[in-house]
Parts: sequence; C-alpha cells; structure tokens
Amino acid sequence: MAVYTEVPDDELAAFVVAYDIGEVVSFKGIAEGVENSNYLLATTGGRFILTLYEKRVDPADLPFFLELLQHLSANGLTCPQPVAGRDGEALRKLCGRPAALVTFLDGVSVRRPTAAQCAALGSALANLHEAGKGFGLKRPNALSVSGWRPLAEAARGRSHVVAPGLDETIAAELDALEAGFATLSLPEGVIHADLFPNNVFFLGEELSGLIDFYFACDDWLAYDLAICLNAWCFEPDQSFNVTKGRAMIEAYHAARPLLPEEIEALPLLARGAALRFLLTRLVDWLDTPPGALVKKLDPLEYLKKLRFHQQAADATAFGWRA
Amino acid sequence: MAVYTEVPDDELAAFVVAYDIGEVVSFKGIAEGVENSNYLLATTGGRFILTLYEKRVDPADLPFFLELLQHLSANGLTCPQPVAGRDGEALRKLCGRPAALVTFLDGVSVRRPTAAQCAALGSALANLHEAGKGFGLKRPNALSVSGWRPLAEAARGRSHVVAPGLDETIAAELDALEAGFATLSLPEGVIHADLFPNNVFFLGEELSGLIDFYFACDDWLAYDLAICLNAWCFEPDQSFNVTKGRAMIEAYHAARPLLPEEIEALPLLARGAALRFLLTRLVDWLDTPPGALVKKLDPLEYLKKLRFHQQAADATAFGWRA
Repeated sequence: MAVYTEVPDDELAAFVVAYDIGEVVSFKGIAEGVENSNYLLATTGGRFILTLYEKRVDPADLPFFLELLQHLSANGLTCPQPVAGRDGEALRKLCGRPAALVTFLDGVSVRRPTAAQCAALGSALANLHEAGKGFGLKRPNALSVSGWRPLAEAARGRSHVVAPGLDETIAAELDALEAGFATLSLPEGVIHADLFPNNVFFLGEELSGLIDFYFACDDWLAYDLAICLNAWCFEPDQSFNVTKGRAMIEAYHAARPLLPEEIEALPLLARGAALRFLLTRLVDWLDTPPGALVKKLDPLEYLKKLRFHQQAADATAFGWRA
Repeated sequence: MAVYTEVPDDELAAFVVAYDIGEVVSFKGIAEGVENSNYLLATTGGRFILTLYEKRVDPADLPFFLELLQHLSANGLTCPQPVAGRDGEALRKLCGRPAALVTFLDGVSVRRPTAAQCAALGSALANLHEAGKGFGLKRPNALSVSGWRPLAEAARGRSHVVAPGLDETIAAELDALEAGFATLSLPEGVIHADLFPNNVFFLGEELSGLIDFYFACDDWLAYDLAICLNAWCFEPDQSFNVTKGRAMIEAYHAARPLLPEEIEALPLLARGAALRFLLTRLVDWLDTPPGALVKKLDPLEYLKKLRFHQQAADATAFGWRA
C-alpha cells in the first residue's frame, strides 16, 4: 500500500502523449494495492489509474491481466478498462517499469458489508464468471492446492510463535485437502481469487465495480465463491453470519446456477480457501521484519475461519437452502 | 509520504454528513505530505483533500494553518481553502484525530522548474506575502536561527558519517549566522517556509496553486525568498542557475518591491536557509533506522548550496541586477 516509484512530471508528460487523453490536470500517488505503484491521473479527457508494475508482478502475466480486463469489460462487467495508446498498445514502459493506464471507477469499498452488499457481491461474482467465458489466455492458479505445501514448508518450525501447534494443524489440514481436492471435478474458468471487500466498490448499496485482478487465474469457479464467503460473511468476532452467506450464495446461484457437485464441494473449498490465506498471511507475518511499515494481516483470523469450515457438514452451514 | 490512519467507509460517511457537500463518490488515500494522512475525496459536490493530522503536528497550531488558508484565499491567493461544516467549523475529529477538509487544486508539481516557472514562483511568493498582510494569528518560526543550535547539538558527534568535518563546518556557520542574523532588521509577515517545487502546482507554464502550509509562520519575508532560491534555482549538479535566480527575484520584486536592506541580506538569508535544511535533513538522516520505508532527503545537497552562498559577495551572485 504505497507508491514505490516516483514519476516525475516530465516523464509523465512524455508518457501521456502516447495516448489520446488530452492534457494532464492532476496526478497523485495513491495508497491502493500492495504490489504496485498506483497513481490517480486526471486529464482533460477523464480520470484514470496509472499502474507501474513492481518486482512482485511477473511481466509475463501482464498481457493476461490487461486482456482479461478488456474481455470482462466487453462482456458487461464493470471493472477497470485498459486504455490503449495511439499505437493500440495498452502495456508500455514508464520509469523503467511496465506500466498501464486503466479507467477510473467511482465507488467506495466497505469495511463491514451488509447482507444486501453480500448479495450484490454474489451476483457480481457470478457475472464475472459468466463474462470470463471465452477468454483465450490461461494462467494457472499458483496459490491453489499444489502451492500450499511449499508455503507450509516455508513456515514450518516457526509457526508456533503465531499459535501453539499450528504446524501440526496445517500439516493435518493439508493432507486432508490434498486428498479431498483430488476427488473433485468442477466447472472451471477465470476467477478473481482475491475479491475481498477492499477490491469491490459501492455507491450506497449499489455495487459500482470490481478492481485489482492481479491474482486472477484459471480455477474452479466455486472456489472463488468460497474465497468470498471467507472474506465477506464472517463477523469481526469470526463467527459466520449465515444471513450474509445465504444472501451471497443465493444471489450467485440466481445469476449462475450452481451444480449439485459445486454445492456439495463448498465446505471443502471453503477450507481450502481458508488454508490458502492462512498460509500466505503466516509466511508474510513470519518474514516481515518487526518495525517495517507494512500492514501485516492476521493469520489467526483465517485459522478461526478454517476451524468453522472443518465443522461444516454441508453447504447448509453457509446458509444454502436445498 | 504515506497514509497513516485508515478511514473506514462508515466513519467517513458519518464525517461527511457534517458538511453540505453531497454524497461520497470516491475516496483514495494519497501519498502527499510526510506529516499527515491525506485522502482525495470526491463527492457529488466536488473534489476535496481530507487531512487527518498525525502526531508530528501540534493541534494547537491547526487554527493558525486553517485560518491562514482562509485568509490567503480571501485575499486572492490560489491555495487549498478550508471547507466548513454545517456548523461553521472547519476543524473536527475523525478516527480520533483532528481532521479538516480543504478544496482540491488542479495542477502538477514540476521536478526541474524552468526559468519561466521560477519567475511564476517569485511572483506567487510575493502575492502570498501581500495576501498574508492583516492576518491576525501569530506563529513563531521554530526552525529559524534560534532553532538551529539544538538541531546541531542533536547531530554532533555523528555527522561525520555524512561528511568528514561536518560538525566543524556546522559549528562555524552557526556562529557566523547567529551573529549575522542578530544585526538584521527586515520586513516581517507570514511566510510559507517550505515552498519547494513539490508544493507548487502548474498547469503547463501557468502556476495553478500553492499547497502544504504546515510550516507557515511569522518571519522575515525575504527569508522565504531565500528558501525558494535554494529549492528552485540550483541544478541537479548543485550549480546555481543565475538565469533562474534572476527570473525569480525580479518577478518577486515586480509584485512586492524588495527594500535595499532585504537585497543586501539575501546572501546571509540564503546561507541561513541552507543551514536550516542541512540540519533538519541531517538529523532525519541520522535518526531514521536503515531499511525504514521513508524517503531520506540528502543533507549533502544543502551543504553544497551552503558552500555556494558562503562565496556570494552580494545578491548579484543570485542574478540580482542593481
């Protein structure tokens, strides 16, 4: 959540002439996204987000991300839309980094979503999955089940500082999920994979757009729903709010009907999604030096979510009504 | 250059209803100013900067800053204008911190000002000094000559890591400046005291506004000009650009005629301004732990400027034509 690369006015001016967007009116570094440098650029032609891709993003992935936004926009989803330069290219260089301009979306992200907002999210998620159909590029999910064991290894021997016995909890869960996931066969497609409330904009109760597609990849569509159940439907005390879960699942189902096997798999997918964020947060927690000005997200939050899902006999635990 | 306090959507909404500015449309933390948390807030009523004042700002100074912006705006200067709530108050609380809303200014700050931009700055600085007349509140300059010895003490014994013999250079300069400043008697008023290029916006060659008045105070007006000569008229190799200096001084003089004693004092004031930024940068440099994600400004830049000014026989060294 920072600007890593400062863009001087002269380099900005040279960059902007490649586009048909008029003259620069204002330019502010914004605190959005943890991975890249982001600027809010206003010109006589409109408002845009300028992103400079920093080291943690693989440049080989950028065509996937930008073409995906283009594809989703063209298919009716409200998300940032890449702006091509006069030469037709959306991806270019600025200050030695890959850089792209996308349209600005109005809206504000919510800290504590209401059930109505959870429903709006469920509907938008289904629309995203529908809009993703026919997208030609592929990107495997590096943070799905095959990526979890290396993360668990990275934390092993150190995780007890976060919670006693955490290594053992993770090892047992990993065994169970690797076995369980191997039995699943579910509809696949493009998923957002990180659709937390901070990546969703609202204007009042109206969902106004989705942002930050830099974890988007190919995976089971229902796994994306499981990520959102984790991210949206727990209360601050980590109790699951069944009303919100039901609102989200039913709204999703109304826009893209879930198959019986997707509904059956939800508890396992929710456990997987909980373990994925538990592991990445745990490794970040252990690897971030004390005093660093980076906001560390609490891994224990996801341990509590995991424990809830381990008790879920079926999707009714999340509010699903058969 | 960071957002220190995160403002959740619900607290923002509760804050905004105190104003007659419509509904929130977007809200972004921006990387502007080193001392406070700043947000760009767009509502159906316009665009604003929301500032939450963090620990380094003395709350007792806030009425001075906000009323000064009001006074300067009312007297024709283009600067952020505090927005009062429905109750007439411009200063209130948000997330436990003093907070204020000001109008948004278009424009982009320039990295390498041209001579024309230096002239525009000189003219705007004189206008600021004229507009400040009659302002009722007072704030002494804590970083004028009486504040330098404590800073020198704070760095003593450590400054050689920045440059060999720096303690001795500072001690000798401090003695000379304390003696020299004691002999001066110059027109006083409200000065900006930190009018670096990053605090000045341009739209093309046109100066569109001045921002960041959080060092503003009462001091000699010509000292503010000396600060600007330092901040605007040196080239990246730390050579003084006489064309830029002349452009700035003459434009200032045309808008607010300099007295002979102000012109005579310029070399001494420029040395003082150089020592002031040398000292604050030096202490920040020595006190910032390695690896901290704070941009450290180079104290040596100001040592080089100081050395230039020590050789200046009179104001013609800066381009002044008698």
